[in-house]
Amino acid sequence: MSAEFKTVWPDSLLSFCQKVFEKMGVPSQDAFLTSDVLVLADLRGIESHGVARLRRYYTGLKNGVMVPKPKIEVKLETPITARIDGGAALGQVAGAFGMKMAIEKALRNGIGFVSVGNSNHFGIAGYYGLMALKHDLIGISLTNSDCYTVPTFGKEVLLGTNPICVTVPALKERPFVLDLSTAVATLGKLEVYTRTGKKLPLGWATDEKGHACDDPQRVLNNIRNKAGGGLLPLGGEGELFGGHKGYGLNLLVDILSGVLSGSGYLNLLYPKTPEGKPLPSLVGHFFGALRIDYFRPAEDFKKDMDDVIRRLRNSAKAEGEDRIYVHGEKEYELEEKYRREGIPLYHKVYDDLKAIGDEVGVAFNL
Amino acid sequence: MSAEFKTVWPDSLLSFCQKVFEKMGVPSQDAFLTSDVLVLADLRGIESHGVARLRRYYTGLKNGVMVPKPKIEVKLETPITARIDGGAALGQVAGAFGMKMAIEKALRNGIGFVSVGNSNHFGIAGYYGLMALKHDLIGISLTNSDCYTVPTFGKEVLLGTNPICVTVPALKERPFVLDLSTAVATLGKLEVYTRTGKKLPLGWATDEKGHACDDPQRVLNNIRNKAGGGLLPLGGEGELFGGHKGYGLNLLVDILSGVLSGSGYLNLLYPKTPEGKPLPSLVGHFFGALRIDYFRPAEDFKKDMDDVIRRLRNSAKAEGEDRIYVHGEKEYELEEKYRREGIPLYHKVYDDLKAIGDEVGVAFNL
Repeated sequence: MSAEFKTVWPDSLLSFCQKVFEKMGVPSQDAFLTSDVLVLADLRGIESHGVARLRRYYTGLKNGVMVPKPKIEVKLETPITARIDGGAALGQVAGAFGMKMAIEKALRNGIGFVSVGNSNHFGIAGYYGLMALKHDLIGISLTNSDCYTVPTFGKEVLLGTNPICVTVPALKERPFVLDLSTAVATLGKLEVYTRTGKKLPLGWATDEKGHACDDPQRVLNNIRNKAGGGLLPLGGEGELFGGHKGYGLNLLVDILSGVLSGSGYLNLLYPKTPEGKPLPSLVGHFFGALRIDYFRPAEDFKKDMDDVIRRLRNSAKAEGEDRIYVHGEKEYELEEKYRREGIPLYHKVYDDLKAIGDEVGVAFNL
Repeated sequence: MSAEFKTVWPDSLLSFCQKVFEKMGVPSQDAFLTSDVLVLADLRGIESHGVARLRRYYTGLKNGVMVPKPKIEVKLETPITARIDGGAALGQVAGAFGMKMAIEKALRNGIGFVSVGNSNHFGIAGYYGLMALKHDLIGISLTNSDCYTVPTFGKEVLLGTNPICVTVPALKERPFVLDLSTAVATLGKLEVYTRTGKKLPLGWATDEKGHACDDPQRVLNNIRNKAGGGLLPLGGEGELFGGHKGYGLNLLVDILSGVLSGSGYLNLLYPKTPEGKPLPSLVGHFFGALRIDYFRPAEDFKKDMDDVIRRLRNSAKAEGEDRIYVHGEKEYELEEKYRREGIPLYHKVYDDLKAIGDEVGVAFNL
């Protein structure tokens, strides 16, 4: 492991985060859950959504944007659907509540769809999809998020990185775990390019006039100051490479997460007072769970999934490539490795955790 | 209108196609429906899926790949789901059967999901989504299709252009009609590039070694001969611009369409006898319909949809652009124009329709 990193054990990391959340007034079980979502992101190599974000949650709890003991309310319920008001809970808490409900409905009645509003950033979308897999269900998890992305032909950041997660069980093979942002890149990647002094690939982001831009620092500054330009949707600038498709998928996620839940959407998310004080963020999520045997015998389906996965894996590789992945595979392999060897944290992240520990009075011995 | 085109009236075009299907043994109502799907594609500017394909259906019916009077069977049914065997029907007939069932279930029980196997090419995915909109439902329509697309890092065409359509009602604004292929481009576009002698944008397709290729004829030949290479998924080559995301969405469509229906998937679609004779194509579809008021009052939701659409439309444009579209808008405007002025058909398409009319004995007077 390079000296850039400090290796920590997942259990200790989880335990530390849990104690921080508890110190902020979060009940023990919710503190565990939220920490579990963060650490799983690191374990699966999605470090942009891992413990590096602990400070944002810590700050959110401190300034009242996130509520440690929320009143989560079921506003509407049918045997197969529900709409939930998350009560400005930690997104992980409102999210797991919603997904659990979708799972219960699916187990009982075949399908469950639950729309969650008035929530916060819920971490990796994949976490909730993986919950469905534990019950052998197809899982769906969507969320809207703070605005970093521009619509096709536009230059205002009106869209989030709005991820789509769909999970599908297989029999002997690992499940299919699709978990993608509908923006072409993430802010985290732009930060890496800034740090290493590299230029951005043209097609990732636009400048304040709305044209392709290869300067990561300029894009980041513009997004922060809402000065015009931002990340591009999957498919890039304009329509030539299908940017309008990524924009459409991104908007769909916002509709199902924000509009269907009666919560925030577009740039109504993350509102602030006129003085610039942050208000509850109004994030929305959409969860789904489907029983396979409501369509065909689950065993047959899962056998065919194995076949799909193997056919792809064994098919001819492009010259210079030695492997074709099925979605989720990389993350499962990384998780196994990191559970065995520990999680490599950037020193910067490690130091920040330590600082948080000092601030809230939680012993830091990772 | 340029001399490259011949303008025809949608009603006459529909009537002609219907008669051709009737001559091929298709019952009148199914012949109307199938023609309606084709003509609507032309009206909405998706001419690659319009009457230009009449010959493929005509040939399919002639060689037995498509069955004019199919036995469509409900293999499994619950109040909110079903699995259908399409009986090798015309895809439009099996498709509309499935979507109608999903709509009925949604109207009665809130949600309907119907999986259709053993079907054929069903035309534009949007047609079925639009059916749901007539009942004020959110509509979903997916299908797998013949293999033209390679997985990320692969060079075998194992994936279709596998479209995703999701439709969402608004109140005073036009509905949101997302209808996209999960491949970055279509074969039809490659044919246009070949005709006009233009090079392909790098990122649309790969050559027989699996590398980016700008020669449309070479790519088309390779796809036809399964010589390696093909269309790239949305996001392009490799992972830099998110090609793995497009590949994942594409595969998801195949799973929900082909695997969930117990029909064909990957290159098991469009099988042939060892002698090269085509067999029933085993295409699968997935349809969904959702009642909005199973989540929140439909009127509130639709008001917010209007707001979403207007905020996007009125937001700042990139320099040089004068309009931001919401999905479906372009197609609705084209449809209005073509209903008023007639549909422009390429002479080549027009002549082919005439030839089909001669072959089956249907008067051609468009």
